Amino acid sequence: MKQFTSIKDVQHLDELVNEALALKQHPFKYKTLGENKTLGLIFLNPSLRTRLSTQKAGQNLGMNVIVMNLDKEGWALETQEGTIMNGNTVEHIKDAAAVMGQYCDIIGIRSFPKLQNREEDYQEELLQQFIKYSKVPVVSLESATRHPLQSLADLVTITESTTSRKRPKVVLTWAPHIKPIPQCVANSFAEWMSQADVELVITHPEGYELADEFTQGATITTNQDEAMQNADFVYVKNWSSYRDYGQVLTDGAGWMLTNEKLQQTNSARVMHCLPVRRNVELSDEILEGPNSLVLEQANNRTYAAQAVLKRMLEAL
Amino acid sequence: MKQFTSIKDVQHLDELVNEALALKQHPFKYKTLGENKTLGLIFLNPSLRTRLSTQKAGQNLGMNVIVMNLDKEGWALETQEGTIMNGNTVEHIKDAAAVMGQYCDIIGIRSFPKLQNREEDYQEELLQQFIKYSKVPVVSLESATRHPLQSLADLVTITESTTSRKRPKVVLTWAPHIKPIPQCVANSFAEWMSQADVELVITHPEGYELADEFTQGATITTNQDEAMQNADFVYVKNWSSYRDYGQVLTDGAGWMLTNEKLQQTNSARVMHCLPVRRNVELSDEILEGPNSLVLEQANNRTYAAQAVLKRMLEAL
Amino acid sequence: MKQFTSIKDVQHLDELVNEALALKQHPFKYKTLGENKTLGLIFLNPSLRTRLSTQKAGQNLGMNVIVMNLDKEGWALETQEGTIMNGNTVEHIKDAAAVMGQYCDIIGIRSFPKLQNREEDYQEELLQQFIKYSKVPVVSLESATRHPLQSLADLVTITESTTSRKRPKVVLTWAPHIKPIPQCVANSFAEWMSQADVELVITHPEGYELADEFTQGATITTNQDEAMQNADFVYVKNWSSYRDYGQVLTDGAGWMLTNEKLQQTNSARVMHCLPVRRNVELSDEILEGPNSLVLEQANNRTYAAQAVLKRMLEAL
Repeated sequence: MKQFTSIKDVQHLDELVNEALALKQHPFKYKTLGENKTLGLIFLNPSLRTRLSTQKAGQNLGMNVIVMNLDKEGWALETQEGTIMNGNTVEHIKDAAAVMGQYCDIIGIRSFPKLQNREEDYQEELLQQFIKYSKVPVVSLESATRHPLQSLADLVTITESTTSRKRPKVVLTWAPHIKPIPQCVANSFAEWMSQADVELVITHPEGYELADEFTQGATITTNQDEAMQNADFVYVKNWSSYRDYGQVLTDGAGWMLTNEKLQQTNSARVMHCLPVRRNVELSDEILEGPNSLVLEQANNRTYAAQAVLKRMLEAL
Repeated sequence: MKQFTSIKDVQHLDELVNEALALKQHPFKYKTLGENKTLGLIFLNPSLRTRLSTQKAGQNLGMNVIVMNLDKEGWALETQEGTIMNGNTVEHIKDAAAVMGQYCDIIGIRSFPKLQNREEDYQEELLQQFIKYSKVPVVSLESATRHPLQSLADLVTITESTTSRKRPKVVLTWAPHIKPIPQCVANSFAEWMSQADVELVITHPEGYELADEFTQGATITTNQDEAMQNADFVYVKNWSSYRDYGQVLTDGAGWMLTNEKLQQTNSARVMHCLPVRRNVELSDEILEGPNSLVLEQANNRTYAAQAVLKRMLEAL
Repeated sequence: MKQFTSIKDVQHLDELVNEALALKQHPFKYKTLGENKTLGLIFLNPSLRTRLSTQKAGQNLGMNVIVMNLDKEGWALETQEGTIMNGNTVEHIKDAAAVMGQYCDIIGIRSFPKLQNREEDYQEELLQQFIKYSKVPVVSLESATRHPLQSLADLVTITESTTSRKRPKVVLTWAPHIKPIPQCVANSFAEWMSQADVELVITHPEGYELADEFTQGATITTNQDEAMQNADFVYVKNWSSYRDYGQVLTDGAGWMLTNEKLQQTNSARVMHCLPVRRNVELSDEILEGPNSLVLEQANNRTYAAQAVLKRMLEAL
């Protein structure tokens, strides 16, 4: 595997999920694979789960892991081509990426969207330039439009939590939030579920339609109650509008998931990528109740990252 | 050992001190004990000695150590129960702690008091919630009311510096400072010395009485000269008022420890946990003189932490 | 090797360069040398290349590496002797350095000049106090006046890129910048080239003369075109004035290196320590053209650091 930025980079999805599940059983089995290899984790935005789980994944594989909060420990990067750099940016991403490629065998990078210019965000320029100029395998730690390590961990979680033989019904439901949030996790989850052996239903208030490219094959409805019927998994997530880009169109009163709403489901397991605004997106009762899968999702982040890193190491 | 937040978590104090002293002689003897184990060190406040010594302690035991400055690299944590999280806090400590418990075999956490509400600080809510929700062994890297790794290192230092057979007289003396400082180090030192085989005298200006629970068995006086008589160890430390909580009641002119004052002692060794405001808390002449133990205290931080981590690893 | 702060700390320059080149071929050959040794990297200023390459160098030698951004994770250090510390500084460098020397077998430290007081900057007080009080080998990660790990990497790069038997002509040319930059890299490069088997020419606008101690043996001219004639290597770097200390005396229009200027050279390889302000210091065309050595310089930073650390480990 040469890059991991979306599900398009995955050849055999089932195998990757099974690999992650196998690594969960034997996390240290491939500890010599990463020996003398350096994993550089570059953050331009804060991170808790992604950082800890990917750092641990690298260490489980025997890699040296270097974490760099580029926004705080480094300086502002220029991404524009051909510019005269007499402003605030100190280094061009071409040079920064190329240099980091000299020191690292694999690079992970997190860079959030600015939510101001849709076209710009969805071009993923920073991530793409990093891939182009670092010349080493790059794994996205969440980019402007996707969060693939999260989605892989989500699929791993759904797979290990699916007990019946029936194809599970998975509902992605929009939830309220107090500020504009990127579409990445929702985009990515929809994109992955479309490829997985599940029935995907997406529900959100009007105006919150995700970009078509991510939702092919999904049933989309603005009726949350209808969507909940018979659901096996409910994935709760806020996102800002794609249409009115980056805007919060409604306070979403009534969209918070509660136990009452859960009663319409097939005793659905509830998922969220965290961090979660308690009693805004999700009620305490659900998070602390028996249906919550959020901690197992977080736990599986390690093995999702490890499966990806393992493939990259094998292809070095 | 399941947690290390105060001396109450220690079953056999002498054995723990001896363990630390033995590890100082052979720091790498148990390097396989921590293999494939992850130590997460979480800081909500700055740290120099605690971070470096605990990181080194973990590495000496073969652990993978992940350091996370949660205040800078992460986001604000909610601690209140049942709150609607529509404000500035991004994640509830319940969730953050539970997630970190998924990635770490042992967690260390530092969180200072705010010095505004005594009852709130002394409830140690953040530390207690971390213990409750992370579900892994937690070691305090200094909390709102105590600094037990420092106190263990202090006791190790006193033990190895005690040459005569006589029970040493240990004086904890208040020192001036320019701003309000938590009571943690003083509380903790008093608490540990009360359990150790020493004679403890505490001296401070009026109004700086520590909470009773930490000073049982100690002689307490506001007469510093009297306290110094025949002292074998003098521990210098500022703290703000517990009574008038968090207040600085006096500039403490005359309380700075000097060589002149030291002459009243039994050639006492001088201790301080560092960082120290030179010529405010302690004079240059003492810090650089033959009686200073401050560097040995700092050095022993590593082996104190290593002894605690070793016990926790053995109990995993 | 007990310290590495300038070329004066190097006994046999050729051997050190050859050591670095040999380590580039076999980076992990000495991986047991650093076992159970701790390298502490202390940053008082941002860093990308220096941090990553030195961290990697330590890991290649099997060391435990602890990175500490003292300005962000710690607190303000006092450097003045005998001061009453009742101001903003929280810890004296004497104490901080001595403590870090307890935890680290080798310490690297970065501290930039303030560019306000020439005499103060050029005394290198912080670096010298660190050496004095830490009592362990100290490697400069760029100080107020020098950047020796960069210069060693530069010399390694020139050595491996010199194909003919002819003594190469090396030109250090001043370049424009938008703000005042320290003289360290230029000072250091001049100092190292003066000791190497090259012909050194330095060119800059009037008023940008470097301190004499660094430029002995070099030809110095304010005529950039003349300097370029027949050059084999052109090292591009901005620095602020040493004479009018820390000042920017000219916008330097016309001093940016371009392909046109390069035509006057002997097809010279172009060097820069990075980060580079593209199209201010150096044109895109050169950076991306076949004559650029900037990435190889960055790559060689690892092996330069590794050669220095290896000597220090051997002398422990």
